Amino acid sequence: MALKAPLVYETKHHLSYYECDATGHPSLSMLISMAVQVSEEHGNSLGLDTAAIQSYGGGWVITSYEGSFAARQPINGEEVILGTRAIANNRFFALREFWIQSADRQVEYVRLTGLFVYMNLQTRHLMSIPQAVIEPYHGPEKKRLPRLAKARELQDVRFKNDYHVRFFDIDSNHHVNNARYFDWMQDPLGAEFLTHHQLKHMTMRYEKEVRYGQTVTSEISSPYRNENGELTTDHRIVVDGQLAAASTMIWYE
Amino acid sequence: MALKAPLVYETKHHLSYYECDATGHPSLSMLISMAVQVSEEHGNSLGLDTAAIQSYGGGWVITSYEGSFAARQPINGEEVILGTRAIANNRFFALREFWIQSADRQVEYVRLTGLFVYMNLQTRHLMSIPQAVIEPYHGPEKKRLPRLAKARELQDVRFKNDYHVRFFDIDSNHHVNNARYFDWMQDPLGAEFLTHHQLKHMTMRYEKEVRYGQTVTSEISSPYRNENGELTTDHRIVVDGQLAAASTMIWYE
Repeated sequence: MALKAPLVYETKHHLSYYECDATGHPSLSMLISMAVQVSEEHGNSLGLDTAAIQSYGGGWVITSYEGSFAARQPINGEEVILGTRAIANNRFFALREFWIQSADRQVEYVRLTGLFVYMNLQTRHLMSIPQAVIEPYHGPEKKRLPRLAKARELQDVRFKNDYHVRFFDIDSNHHVNNARYFDWMQDPLGAEFLTHHQLKHMTMRYEKEVRYGQTVTSEISSPYRNENGELTTDHRIVVDGQLAAASTMIWYE
Repeated sequence: MALKAPLVYETKHHLSYYECDATGHPSLSMLISMAVQVSEEHGNSLGLDTAAIQSYGGGWVITSYEGSFAARQPINGEEVILGTRAIANNRFFALREFWIQSADRQVEYVRLTGLFVYMNLQTRHLMSIPQAVIEPYHGPEKKRLPRLAKARELQDVRFKNDYHVRFFDIDSNHHVNNARYFDWMQDPLGAEFLTHHQLKHMTMRYEKEVRYGQTVTSEISSPYRNENGELTTDHRIVVDGQLAAASTMIWYE
């Protein structure tokens, strides 16, 4: 039997002013939102909308991301290419890749990998991924999936802020849009840092779901140099004393 | 001399999941953002980008909105038509109209009017609108512009919440995105109210600019019936004891 190549799904997207921050480039939370958006569209194009996916008793949940960002990022008003494909899956995990490129494909702005599980949305227990919701992507089945880089444990708290989870943080799937975590995670760095530093690499792990009405605490380490001499910050989101998410971000200088 | 008809600018827009809230429809702040977006694109198409506008010493500032919303609203994933045109202007004010329609034009989801002034962005003083930034729109010149409905003064505070202005509330024009005020203004109503009530009409007046790092207090009246028997709420945003914005919202039941 001939192996099917993983299906590539691409779409064009016109960057609006409200997807860009004070730097004139899309914020990390908006880049992540665009990745989620293209992954939803890919599913829809294969007949796998939310209702179809949930008909098997669960839903896709993202557990971690790893992403690399070019020094040159797209600007407000630019048309970009959003793309995605399945890169590997086994019984419990599916790895999906995303990219954001310039319309002429000369620059790859973002390359992102996301690890998904299929979860019973009532009990929040992992389920094995139903063949019907994964097979249409033609992702190669692999016993061992490539690992995403881990977030480092935060050693000291240099920046800290509380965020109340608002009604408009909830998306049409009735969960907190998981891209919002990045706004909470970056905001305490402050305008001075965020205006003068640009993200080069990030890794993110979701540990515990945050809910409407809760207050999350966002904590960030002092910026330090990693083993490659790169400027790095460690981040965590804490709710009721429990770790909800952890991230490590590497910055261009 | 023949009168030129006001130029109409329209564009198609694909609604993403992150523009929709828990109801599956775009939030008010996203509808307003789309209006601002189409007005920016209209300007760009006439050679009036931000740099061109600011070359005359000031910039457009929105002072108030009035909007009507159909009972049927667009859904996540839908393609809609965004449109705008200038409807009237005089030496100091320009009135612009926006609409959001279904792709087949069978439903007009939103009809919005916005009042703009041209302001020295350093001194924050009103300037007379330079001919070069208004003439290309072919809006009719009128001594007296149609008036937008006023927000009613809030009589009692039933809902109240504080919001810290975050880095990601600032857009690529380096000001707080004025659509964010609507998130602050609606969020204190709570998920129960916002899930079960749909906006029918709103009027909004910006009184004072809010800046990064400030804390705004959002206050909302008890819901009451207006003279037409419609369910109504009055809203205000207060910063350091001063009124920053006021809104009145009418709701479908």
